[in-house]
Amino acid sequence: MRNLRLDISYDGGRYKGWQRLANTDSTIQAKIEQILSRILQEQVEIVGSGRTDAGTHAMGQVANCHCNSTMPCEEILAQLRRYLPEDIGIHSVKNVSPRFHARLNAKTKTYRYRLWNSEAPCVFDRKYVSIDPAHLNLVDMQKAADCFVGEHDFSAFCANKNMKKSTVRYIQTFSVEQVGHEIIFTVTGNGFLHNMVRIMVGTLLEVGKGVRPADSIPNLFGATRAEAGVLMESKGLCLMEVTY
Amino acid sequence: MRNLRLDISYDGGRYKGWQRLANTDSTIQAKIEQILSRILQEQVEIVGSGRTDAGTHAMGQVANCHCNSTMPCEEILAQLRRYLPEDIGIHSVKNVSPRFHARLNAKTKTYRYRLWNSEAPCVFDRKYVSIDPAHLNLVDMQKAADCFVGEHDFSAFCANKNMKKSTVRYIQTFSVEQVGHEIIFTVTGNGFLHNMVRIMVGTLLEVGKGVRPADSIPNLFGATRAEAGVLMESKGLCLMEVTY
Repeated sequence: MRNLRLDISYDGGRYKGWQRLANTDSTIQAKIEQILSRILQEQVEIVGSGRTDAGTHAMGQVANCHCNSTMPCEEILAQLRRYLPEDIGIHSVKNVSPRFHARLNAKTKTYRYRLWNSEAPCVFDRKYVSIDPAHLNLVDMQKAADCFVGEHDFSAFCANKNMKKSTVRYIQTFSVEQVGHEIIFTVTGNGFLHNMVRIMVGTLLEVGKGVRPADSIPNLFGATRAEAGVLMESKGLCLMEVTY
Repeated sequence: MRNLRLDISYDGGRYKGWQRLANTDSTIQAKIEQILSRILQEQVEIVGSGRTDAGTHAMGQVANCHCNSTMPCEEILAQLRRYLPEDIGIHSVKNVSPRFHARLNAKTKTYRYRLWNSEAPCVFDRKYVSIDPAHLNLVDMQKAADCFVGEHDFSAFCANKNMKKSTVRYIQTFSVEQVGHEIIFTVTGNGFLHNMVRIMVGTLLEVGKGVRPADSIPNLFGATRAEAGVLMESKGLCLMEVTY
């Protein structure tokens, strides 16, 4: 069966997240499935590399979709671009091996969290950053971020309290950089638990404010949700890249 | 009398332009005057460096305002930031000489026009760019832009057909650059007629498409509006800086 790979960007601002839900069509997955089914004239389901939360953005979400249609990829791409709303953009549509699975084959994911760390007004990017003008110790935050690197039990960084599957994940890199008025958190790992990036960033912020020592991060591995930091709001988060 | 200088950014997307209008309060000037009058507890009027069109943005608009209030500038700034909507940002509030006039004293203004020149989706900056994926000859466009530099009669680049005042303006620099998927037009001059930047960019686009020769620009000085190019949409335009 034909298998299509879609590379997707979206502004998650007005959506209830990636994943299709009953009783609403305002999720990214539902929106794309609706339009794609109409274009291909068959009912299709798309599989994303993973869910993104309500309000979270993506520059490099990847999805795949099995179909019978013989419509050329360029034509599918052109029609998707024509009919999708302007806050969902399709970078490419490609034929891939029937065995390609956007979620199961994902090797790494990279997320970016943007924090506007200034009293100065943030007019143009206001929908893509979280705002906190507090003084932050960047050196301590990077030290703490380094502690996340490696394989650890991220139970304390998972919103799902009844998680039955493994909460062990591998973090490859985690950088904290000042860029103009912003602090940019960039984390790459083999997978992320529900809300994991937003809770890690919330915890790093507490380190940056001196509320939590940088070297206390390892104490949180295998700990409970209550021991880690606050959940940051979703609009600062963006799924940047998925590798296979 | 005390004179305040305000440095302002705004996302013009949901406003009917800078200038206060009868029958609506959805202009930037009206919005700021309303809030500022409430903060200072006296009726104030602000004078901008110039109008911006409905939908046009600003990163460096400057305004001044006479008042009697003795409230410290920091307090005025903090209150403006607290009460203004998030699409209007105040960079600073400063005491300036009573003679400072944001419009009359302006020496140069710099505008930037952003054109998304790609088939690739533009999801995140879609409200700040105009989209045209046509192939454009950048060398010809820069040649044509260079023709604008100097003192010329820009009558053909003025939306106001019954302009009674001089249509002579001085353009200092005009650059056309490719930055990623975008073509960025940046023009600095001593003043701009109504819609002048948007008509100049529209004319340059026709040069870039080969519809109009680069060296034909000088023929347009002193000509009529019909001879110049199309008016570009306002959302790609941003007032970047005013110098005094």
